[in-house]
Amino acid sequence: MERKIYVGSNYNPEHWPKDRWPIDVQYMKEAGVNVLRLTDLAWSRLEPEDGKFDFGWLDEFMAMAGEAGIGLILTTPIEASPVWLRHKHPEVVRTDKFGRIHGERGNHCHNRTALHFYVERLVDRMASRYARHPAVIGWQIDNELRAVHCYCEECLIGFQAWLRSRYGTLERLNDEWGTVFWSQEYRSWDEVKLPSADQLTISVSQVVDYYRFASDSTVNHVARQADIIKGYAPHHFVTHNSLGYWYLFLDLNRLAEKLDFMGWDSYPDVDSDNHHICIGHDLHRSVKPSNDKFWVLEQKNGYFNYSNYNLAIEPGLVRLWAYQDIARGANGVLFYNWRSNRFSWEQNPNGIFRHDGTPRRAYYEMKQMIAELGGFGGELVDASVEAPVAIIHSYDQIWGYEAHKQYTNFDYRRHIMDYHKVLARNGVTADLVEPQADLSRYKLVIAPSMAMVNEDIQRNLEAYVKNGGCLVIGARSGMKTWANTTIVTPWPGLLTELAGVAIDEFEVLPDHYSNGIAYKGKEYRVKVWLDMLETKTAETVATYTEKFYAGRTAISKNRFGEGTVYYVGVMGSTELIEHLLNDIAGERGIRMAPIPDEIYVTHRVNKEHRFTFFINVNRKPVTVKLDYPGLDVIKGEEVTGEAEIGGLDVLIIKSAVSAQQEDNEA
Amino acid sequence: MERKIYVGSNYNPEHWPKDRWPIDVQYMKEAGVNVLRLTDLAWSRLEPEDGKFDFGWLDEFMAMAGEAGIGLILTTPIEASPVWLRHKHPEVVRTDKFGRIHGERGNHCHNRTALHFYVERLVDRMASRYARHPAVIGWQIDNELRAVHCYCEECLIGFQAWLRSRYGTLERLNDEWGTVFWSQEYRSWDEVKLPSADQLTISVSQVVDYYRFASDSTVNHVARQADIIKGYAPHHFVTHNSLGYWYLFLDLNRLAEKLDFMGWDSYPDVDSDNHHICIGHDLHRSVKPSNDKFWVLEQKNGYFNYSNYNLAIEPGLVRLWAYQDIARGANGVLFYNWRSNRFSWEQNPNGIFRHDGTPRRAYYEMKQMIAELGGFGGELVDASVEAPVAIIHSYDQIWGYEAHKQYTNFDYRRHIMDYHKVLARNGVTADLVEPQADLSRYKLVIAPSMAMVNEDIQRNLEAYVKNGGCLVIGARSGMKTWANTTIVTPWPGLLTELAGVAIDEFEVLPDHYSNGIAYKGKEYRVKVWLDMLETKTAETVATYTEKFYAGRTAISKNRFGEGTVYYVGVMGSTELIEHLLNDIAGERGIRMAPIPDEIYVTHRVNKEHRFTFFINVNRKPVTVKLDYPGLDVIKGEEVTGEAEIGGLDVLIIKSAVSAQQEDNEA
Amino acid sequence: MERKIYVGSNYNPEHWPKDRWPIDVQYMKEAGVNVLRLTDLAWSRLEPEDGKFDFGWLDEFMAMAGEAGIGLILTTPIEASPVWLRHKHPEVVRTDKFGRIHGERGNHCHNRTALHFYVERLVDRMASRYARHPAVIGWQIDNELRAVHCYCEECLIGFQAWLRSRYGTLERLNDEWGTVFWSQEYRSWDEVKLPSADQLTISVSQVVDYYRFASDSTVNHVARQADIIKGYAPHHFVTHNSLGYWYLFLDLNRLAEKLDFMGWDSYPDVDSDNHHICIGHDLHRSVKPSNDKFWVLEQKNGYFNYSNYNLAIEPGLVRLWAYQDIARGANGVLFYNWRSNRFSWEQNPNGIFRHDGTPRRAYYEMKQMIAELGGFGGELVDASVEAPVAIIHSYDQIWGYEAHKQYTNFDYRRHIMDYHKVLARNGVTADLVEPQADLSRYKLVIAPSMAMVNEDIQRNLEAYVKNGGCLVIGARSGMKTWANTTIVTPWPGLLTELAGVAIDEFEVLPDHYSNGIAYKGKEYRVKVWLDMLETKTAETVATYTEKFYAGRTAISKNRFGEGTVYYVGVMGSTELIEHLLNDIAGERGIRMAPIPDEIYVTHRVNKEHRFTFFINVNRKPVTVKLDYPGLDVIKGEEVTGEAEIGGLDVLIIKSAVSAQQEDNEA
Repeated sequence: MERKIYVGSNYNPEHWPKDRWPIDVQYMKEAGVNVLRLTDLAWSRLEPEDGKFDFGWLDEFMAMAGEAGIGLILTTPIEASPVWLRHKHPEVVRTDKFGRIHGERGNHCHNRTALHFYVERLVDRMASRYARHPAVIGWQIDNELRAVHCYCEECLIGFQAWLRSRYGTLERLNDEWGTVFWSQEYRSWDEVKLPSADQLTISVSQVVDYYRFASDSTVNHVARQADIIKGYAPHHFVTHNSLGYWYLFLDLNRLAEKLDFMGWDSYPDVDSDNHHICIGHDLHRSVKPSNDKFWVLEQKNGYFNYSNYNLAIEPGLVRLWAYQDIARGANGVLFYNWRSNRFSWEQNPNGIFRHDGTPRRAYYEMKQMIAELGGFGGELVDASVEAPVAIIHSYDQIWGYEAHKQYTNFDYRRHIMDYHKVLARNGVTADLVEPQADLSRYKLVIAPSMAMVNEDIQRNLEAYVKNGGCLVIGARSGMKTWANTTIVTPWPGLLTELAGVAIDEFEVLPDHYSNGIAYKGKEYRVKVWLDMLETKTAETVATYTEKFYAGRTAISKNRFGEGTVYYVGVMGSTELIEHLLNDIAGERGIRMAPIPDEIYVTHRVNKEHRFTFFINVNRKPVTVKLDYPGLDVIKGEEVTGEAEIGGLDVLIIKSAVSAQQEDNEA
Repeated sequence: MERKIYVGSNYNPEHWPKDRWPIDVQYMKEAGVNVLRLTDLAWSRLEPEDGKFDFGWLDEFMAMAGEAGIGLILTTPIEASPVWLRHKHPEVVRTDKFGRIHGERGNHCHNRTALHFYVERLVDRMASRYARHPAVIGWQIDNELRAVHCYCEECLIGFQAWLRSRYGTLERLNDEWGTVFWSQEYRSWDEVKLPSADQLTISVSQVVDYYRFASDSTVNHVARQADIIKGYAPHHFVTHNSLGYWYLFLDLNRLAEKLDFMGWDSYPDVDSDNHHICIGHDLHRSVKPSNDKFWVLEQKNGYFNYSNYNLAIEPGLVRLWAYQDIARGANGVLFYNWRSNRFSWEQNPNGIFRHDGTPRRAYYEMKQMIAELGGFGGELVDASVEAPVAIIHSYDQIWGYEAHKQYTNFDYRRHIMDYHKVLARNGVTADLVEPQADLSRYKLVIAPSMAMVNEDIQRNLEAYVKNGGCLVIGARSGMKTWANTTIVTPWPGLLTELAGVAIDEFEVLPDHYSNGIAYKGKEYRVKVWLDMLETKTAETVATYTEKFYAGRTAISKNRFGEGTVYYVGVMGSTELIEHLLNDIAGERGIRMAPIPDEIYVTHRVNKEHRFTFFINVNRKPVTVKLDYPGLDVIKGEEVTGEAEIGGLDVLIIKSAVSAQQEDNEA
Repeated sequence: MERKIYVGSNYNPEHWPKDRWPIDVQYMKEAGVNVLRLTDLAWSRLEPEDGKFDFGWLDEFMAMAGEAGIGLILTTPIEASPVWLRHKHPEVVRTDKFGRIHGERGNHCHNRTALHFYVERLVDRMASRYARHPAVIGWQIDNELRAVHCYCEECLIGFQAWLRSRYGTLERLNDEWGTVFWSQEYRSWDEVKLPSADQLTISVSQVVDYYRFASDSTVNHVARQADIIKGYAPHHFVTHNSLGYWYLFLDLNRLAEKLDFMGWDSYPDVDSDNHHICIGHDLHRSVKPSNDKFWVLEQKNGYFNYSNYNLAIEPGLVRLWAYQDIARGANGVLFYNWRSNRFSWEQNPNGIFRHDGTPRRAYYEMKQMIAELGGFGGELVDASVEAPVAIIHSYDQIWGYEAHKQYTNFDYRRHIMDYHKVLARNGVTADLVEPQADLSRYKLVIAPSMAMVNEDIQRNLEAYVKNGGCLVIGARSGMKTWANTTIVTPWPGLLTELAGVAIDEFEVLPDHYSNGIAYKGKEYRVKVWLDMLETKTAETVATYTEKFYAGRTAISKNRFGEGTVYYVGVMGSTELIEHLLNDIAGERGIRMAPIPDEIYVTHRVNKEHRFTFFINVNRKPVTVKLDYPGLDVIKGEEVTGEAEIGGLDVLIIKSAVSAQQEDNEA
């Protein structure tokens, strides 16, 4: 792969007449497109009948694109399997909770032997054929994978085996799940069932483990394909386009281990602040710490097909979205789609080209951006996003809460987003990492809520703090085992020594209630979940102001080894988070200061240079203060002090890293 | 059939003791009832055991009613089939998406051979027995039919045959449905499935065709019975009582082809403007253009059984509702029910008589109306409703949107109703016709939205305009094929030459957004769907005022042949529609002027006379201006200039057509 | 059983290590706990394999508890059956409407032969083993039973048999259900089906009878177990913990016939007035008139597991709740749970002890209360709650409305609660009794709504009034047969002579409408259901003020024998109810006067003494007026005139009954 930012799109030659192909390729050349994703939905054309393959049409197009200097990504087209396969094997579609085969695109069961056979044969054919194709640069495995919750008999067998390997003995499973509670004790492995609708009792622990098993099943589905591809083409990258931050059931950390780098599909709104997109970028950047660049494999450029309304996309917005991707670590941006789909559920004009084959504004914005990147894109390739803070984000926690919601007004991921957004609005970018991850590089680690803790996590956090780290633990933490049952020691359990507090009592408020807390002379309204802290080795930082527990500790601060631990026993106030994190940032030497509304600031830094990205989501110009003088790489002008950015425009300042380090040391 | 308006009710002799029958018939005679509908729910009494028929009780009642001079309509009592049939053949009940037999009254599968056998045998027995009965005037086939969506194996076979006959080859089906999109390509006919829940991929085109197939299946169910009846009794009329404007899935245009005239069941509210009833009348009047009179086979007169509340029916309201039926083209009004049902789901006092057998106020209001109609009803029989405007209403469009809603804030039928209501509130009655219908008689044709267009429709509309017609095309038109896929030419596709515009872009606004448009010096807020027009041969009539497309065309006007085409690219403003239609009405010589609130005005016109109906839904008197002097046929007084109508009262003015024609020509 | 109030908790020795048991028992002894409920969820430990029983661990704990002087209640642990049973007999779990086995804890089918076998064997083993155990005082049968609606083939057979025994002949069933209505007539018993989803027609009467059958099936499930237990241990009491007032489907009156006294599980809110708990107490007290004391077998003391939020429980609240139980007739209060559950769906700290084994505040409040009761609890045991008013509450009515809701704004049980609350806020406690119950002891009987009436009920009510009683009948009464079909005589049918009115018409208003009525010079807004009365022998007490029926009678009063009957044709105004009941209370010599907000007052009276309970749900002190001077039994001080009660505190005044009788006679 070349040292450049890749910009292109998805292309479906199988959807359009052959005589159109050269026209499209000509348009691509004119715009400087350097990458295309192919075959995402093409199984029925690559294997029109069971075991009869037809690569001719694809060879033809790939040759054409290759000659135009375009790098190609081949997708294993599993998501939409052909009708003949399901006609022969209806069971490759998932079985629902009620034992019914119940489909929808992509809803295959990843544990079906029949599916394995057909997928592996197809991937083997594709990989062996295209491993040495000069235009191919990499592979996408399947499309927007869901960890489909299937309740078929092969899943049952798989789940029993998974549990046996996790727990070793039934005694341990019974013990960790606490099956004694509702007489759900198992006496033989074949009594253990999936959490299907025909069960009298299903335990919360069983559900969490089922979610883990389903995610693992899907990760294995990817690994099987990756292994085949790497066997033929170790020099090609392998990636996948994830559904993003909000999709619950697939552990991206585990998935990323099977991939060379992470990819995802980004569909921003025209009329929101798109913070959910920013956090999506940050998550996908940090799920594979060994490769902190990612690709946006589908970047929205037109009308979205699965929304209740569709605002017209204003001039400038498509380019802006693509720069936002790069600003937060993307090394590749592929617009979806080249030409608008004509059929079935995706008929909105979602392409760079209209249905009628004429270019939309997006084409010209893409062209402009590719031209601009020609000047500085290559330098970005190994520039990492500067993220001094880590936020702990864990699929096990998500599944724990999902298996047993308990409180409807607590949303784990919105709660994480509250912390993330306060940082972003103050110019600080955060990684989203697992609690087991290496934390040593971060100036600050925030665990907004972490109900389930195990000894690995305890050790990891303690080591980080002991060596001088700073850890913020949020409310509702530490009271559960890794099997999602409640501990028998005082709360916050394994986090007790770290936090230096005990929690005797709490309350969970509905939306119409709140309590107050006093922090450094200011009062904040807090709600959702309130822990009442008893300080042991910690000191009190904030106290409650109302109800019978007025005066009790709400936030504490503890010294642990060389480091510090805050326990923030309250939720629901971003103003309080901002106040507190500003104080902590001061202690930790993190630059934190408010940035103008609807401006997004991030930094990509390599050994020599810092690239500071200012993305202006306002419809009007905004003036920003520059921390570092440098080169406006788009305009090619030196700037210092401050600069104006046009509405829906982008400013990128390149500055020298060496000078800044001296500056910091001074 | 005699030349009179038929007024009567439904009657269920099988629900009441025999000794009550003569009492009821005596009440009927006293009121002048001249028609009864029988046997709608009587299958279990007509055929108490498989193949054992009992017509004795019915003969007896029919003789009694016939002697009283009452015309009889026999209903084929299929909706509520007997228990013994379902016990033998549970499969006559529909199979749901999940493969389960899943019933509810009337939910038979119309493709089941077993059902065909039993229905045809029963209808044959009834028709042969009563074809020459002197009191019988006609037949109602089944009751409130739904095009039941069944997913049984006989539907599967039927659907495959239906598709084969529609598309000829699988190649053409694959092509028109665009099955390549999600690898859904079929290689043999038996791979084609119903859109049942066990499918991985279902295409939008498949769903639309399934809706067409289901409607056809139900129309065939009617045709099979009509054929048997007509075989024995060609002199009897055959009709059906449809569920009305809001029921989606049965194409009333196709159904009407099998019937002598259309019928429907009208259940107005006590506390709404009942515009949905008016549009129901107008639809049922115009679905069979060759016979533009219809019957109301069930007219509410009491408490409704399927609503969450029931307001007491004020004195006068029952008579008012019945006159509203006639005012819009009904030649028959049958109240539902004679005596209030006692059992099961319909226990509210819904009869002209109470449960205890005493008459409710409705009885006396019906009696009064029959007496009044004695004076002029006969003259109305061939008087047609004057409807100078046609609104295009198409079940294929409904199903297209239904198969793929895309945007929740767009409702095709409410959108049509917006146009219809603006006309009605200005004294203009519209027909609701298919896009393929003969349009030559209309001064104005409005197609409020017509996404799918085929060449037949194009030809029909072009012919109409070419010959001097005026066509208004609403937003969201012309971008789809008849298989509900997107076209590959510029929008509005086959309507392009007619409209003289191209549409590059649009936006779909949620409820909380709008844009402005300027039309003849006034500004209107528009929303839902906004097309941005590029005028080709058309001129600009109105432009957008906000956002990046301010100044672009929102409404255009094009000359085509001898006629004119407006393309109204916006939705959501009835004020704008009113302004625009007033201007167009002026051009087209349509009398259009506001009428007082809650007054409904329609005209029935035969060769000699115009009957102008004023229905006053107000609870207090209203004075109306009369366009024509004439005879108040109820009071028997000549009126001119203006007249007062009492609260919840009716005024009918009979005027001479000849004088008016002179007047118009002058 | 000893003459004392029992206070204790549920205990699960099987959930905790054996070495914890003595610690817990020591805590119990220190607090004075005198009762424990055991084995509610222990089936898998009592019978770990099919037919292999293990009572050793239970013997051991029971011996320990017995030595500590604690009385034991054994629960038949059916709710959570063991996995091995369902593995062998999956069909013991209920079959849903669609024919699928579809579980959830407690969702067994009570008609399954397999379930009967295993339940009866286990109960036989438990009863035979512990009948003579010195510590055992009684048994709880199953846990929080639901009348599970199952649609399996054994339920079908059971239903057919139940119907055959109820109706004798099919002719009578067809007649009473009115199956002729939708051709649902049955010709043989095997044609009669359950109201499952595969039926084309289901009648309202069929549904009501199915609810009756399901309730009976569950009552039989209890009776089978009670018979076994009583066979071995006639000296032990048998009870059950019902789900409370809001659970619909189990007829507590029939259930109570099988039990020595009634029990229920009380889970009050921290932030409501808990009137729903008070009415729960009153219902459970009066469902077994022969034993008007009940037990609270689960009393909330901590965080609730099935709510969307959980407020911290303020100091004093746990003791307050327990006294509220006793104040309304409880002779036993068992907190749920001793120690907080750790597993699965119930992980909130719901115990008197935390998960970590340390006592919560609840422990000390319980200890305090036990000490207080030591002084006077014994005297309460046979003191009955003084309830001069009966409200008619009938499961048949509930099921009638449930089978056919008709009107969403009418809620039978909320409507009853309106009457109940008006009485309670004025210091009058009401029983909730069946319409067939002995009413002679009540000064006033209120039937807030009674659509279905049969001749037994008619006779009972007429006898009560004839002998001088006072009956208030609410709107929507008397128009239905006991099979939930409409009568053929004028409304209110069998109540006509009692009420002395006829009802020709009514209306049912949605929430946004109302009418006015004038009662003794005041006007009230009424809604929901309004009957328009025609007085026959009755006099008019209030009239409507609006709409076309202004001036017609809304409330009437009739003399019948020695008594009086009010027909209150309106709903929706508690102000009106309060005004009317105050007037009636005056006539009937019932002490009725407003009591301060959030104070609850009840009286328990035995031959010698009256115990007046004041429960202060306010967070601040309140001063109350005392009707009778007496002894504050908690403080041990004589009080007279008035007294102050602390926030969340309780005052109990013991006064001599003899003096009061003289007082009343004077």
